[in-house]
Amino acid sequence: MKIVTCSAPVNIAVIKYWGKRDEELLLPINDSVSGTLSEMYAKTSIAASPDFAGNRMWLNGVEETFDSPRILNVLQHFREELKKSGASKEILSWKLHICSENNFPTAAGLASSAAGYACLVYTLATLYGLQEKIELSAIARVGSGSACRSIYGGFVQWEAGNRADGKDSIAVQLAPHTHWPEMEILILVVSDNRKKTSSTGGMSRSVKTSALIDFRAKNCVPKRVQDISKAIQEKDFQTFAEITMKDSNQFHAICLDTYPPCVYLNDVSHAIIDLIHRYNAAAGSTKVAYTFDAGPNACLYLLRQDVPEVLNLVKRAFPNDKINSPEYLKGIPVTEKPISDDLAKKINLEPIGHNLLKYIIHTKIGDGPQILPESQSLLNSSGLPIKM
Amino acid sequence: MKIVTCSAPVNIAVIKYWGKRDEELLLPINDSVSGTLSEMYAKTSIAASPDFAGNRMWLNGVEETFDSPRILNVLQHFREELKKSGASKEILSWKLHICSENNFPTAAGLASSAAGYACLVYTLATLYGLQEKIELSAIARVGSGSACRSIYGGFVQWEAGNRADGKDSIAVQLAPHTHWPEMEILILVVSDNRKKTSSTGGMSRSVKTSALIDFRAKNCVPKRVQDISKAIQEKDFQTFAEITMKDSNQFHAICLDTYPPCVYLNDVSHAIIDLIHRYNAAAGSTKVAYTFDAGPNACLYLLRQDVPEVLNLVKRAFPNDKINSPEYLKGIPVTEKPISDDLAKKINLEPIGHNLLKYIIHTKIGDGPQILPESQSLLNSSGLPIKM
Repeated sequence: MKIVTCSAPVNIAVIKYWGKRDEELLLPINDSVSGTLSEMYAKTSIAASPDFAGNRMWLNGVEETFDSPRILNVLQHFREELKKSGASKEILSWKLHICSENNFPTAAGLASSAAGYACLVYTLATLYGLQEKIELSAIARVGSGSACRSIYGGFVQWEAGNRADGKDSIAVQLAPHTHWPEMEILILVVSDNRKKTSSTGGMSRSVKTSALIDFRAKNCVPKRVQDISKAIQEKDFQTFAEITMKDSNQFHAICLDTYPPCVYLNDVSHAIIDLIHRYNAAAGSTKVAYTFDAGPNACLYLLRQDVPEVLNLVKRAFPNDKINSPEYLKGIPVTEKPISDDLAKKINLEPIGHNLLKYIIHTKIGDGPQILPESQSLLNSSGLPIKM
Repeated sequence: MKIVTCSAPVNIAVIKYWGKRDEELLLPINDSVSGTLSEMYAKTSIAASPDFAGNRMWLNGVEETFDSPRILNVLQHFREELKKSGASKEILSWKLHICSENNFPTAAGLASSAAGYACLVYTLATLYGLQEKIELSAIARVGSGSACRSIYGGFVQWEAGNRADGKDSIAVQLAPHTHWPEMEILILVVSDNRKKTSSTGGMSRSVKTSALIDFRAKNCVPKRVQDISKAIQEKDFQTFAEITMKDSNQFHAICLDTYPPCVYLNDVSHAIIDLIHRYNAAAGSTKVAYTFDAGPNACLYLLRQDVPEVLNLVKRAFPNDKINSPEYLKGIPVTEKPISDDLAKKINLEPIGHNLLKYIIHTKIGDGPQILPESQSLLNSSGLPIKM
């Protein structure tokens, strides 16, 4: 039996992926750009053995049936690569035990599938010794589109590509996580009970019905990708932040132009957007950028020096019964810096509402997937989950 | 002294006006189409006399200073037309007392300025005997863009025009109110306390910052105007309704693509949108269309036969303490028809929340401005407001 354990991080797009040109191969209609996060990751152990009776899978402590078409698709790609590589036929016949968990709540709508599929692919590649030999991002992509961006740390571009077979639809690293170490992220997890459209269903409906999505993909995104790549290279936060906010807004505009519309932002999301614009205006420069995926949670990109003050801003605008509980601020510890009375007045800072946020996560730009030591395995020597 | 009293109706756009090509002349970047409402109107009395000490104006019972640039602009247009018409110079020197009121709450965000300016222009034209001689819609337009559409009853198109001087930016009637007498409207007035961006400020920001607004104006609206005009001529409700909803959504998408974004819809607006889509899907055909202006209130276009059931739908989805008060349902009386258990189940009809609507107005497509008898004057024989 062979056991390998790896981790792969969450990524948060600043130029959004929305719309597929091929639903089977998960090929997008436009490039996207993301930051890879530290602190938030999936961890996966895979055991392969000729003695296992069959394939089994445990996700976040629950055994799942081994029949997800996307997972089978990923495994099929590996089998093909193994054959091409001339590996012994023996390992191809070995059954797998896959055990995976996220170190953050999956229900919070925080792009858990991207980290999960990136981790599955990275761990399989390590298990099979294929890491350096194949394009991991292309295989992660067939699991979950944006998973391809979690194959690298730092800032990552997913090139849409042109080929029908998708071979050129891969992720490339724009800059490693060491390039702009001051870049940090606050995630505001918003309370929300609405039934939401899945992102797969939503983007499919957008491609079919939005009158604006093509124009966005062809005429807006290319320049934004070029400009934000340059801003990342030059560590130009103002430009980075403005493009990030505009692209988040345009992505949600496309969702609203869909029929029936897909609505992911709620009143709290919009109150956060408004608060950030008021803060930036009062501060006299763009200090914080918001971006929202297919859900109401806000991801704020900002520089380390501004985190203490912005944390105070958020806590004052969104008072919460749990505000002093250690569970309320997760991730990297940070000491708040009170906003001056003068600035608070300029912002017109008032409590927006009570208990509107569930909690806050503080993180930063981080490295890509890692091979973890045996001591961190989720599977025991029999290939079964250690904790169930 | 000469006194004239007229009324002019509210109109609700189904193809939205958003964006000016000339801020001075209020020339739009695209055509728009609206229905003129019965029941909801502005009423204006204007007295002209050589004996008045100066111009005075009362709006909804409050005296206002006579210095609004838009009102002065409208008056300037009339002076020019009077000169051209060879009218005696005497009447040009007479001072005016203008008294105007709406028969609906102005604070509800229900396009009160359109009815108000249309009424001002129609009343002045009547006073000066210019009604048949000048293009009233072009003068109403310089007061408030969408006011030009309130110059006609039924369904109205505001042609954007191409000329720099705006002479071809006028309203034309697509069909009189007698053409499609079954078309009715329910307005759901939504409780909302947010400070909102004015539509003038919002559309100016959209023109400056939205990457999508030009594409909408040039590539989406023209076909929609053509298709909805045909749907109106043919009384094709399905097509009318679908275009109406898509254009409302696209207008709000453009608002969201603006930087900083303009947000007019709130969670209640989105719950109404979702409810209408669920109702139409369960009913098996598009029975109701929603449309939202620059505010959270929903205007539902629907056929008379469906009003009783849709009223029941709305009351059940939005329970309200005042639901049985006569003040809760204003406008044309209507008897509810309970939704069948089967349909309610298909819709998954549950209360969305308590007291989320302020009240409901039931109206229909109506006639254009009217000259009213002396008995309806808002000014007494001294030219002063009768009720203050």
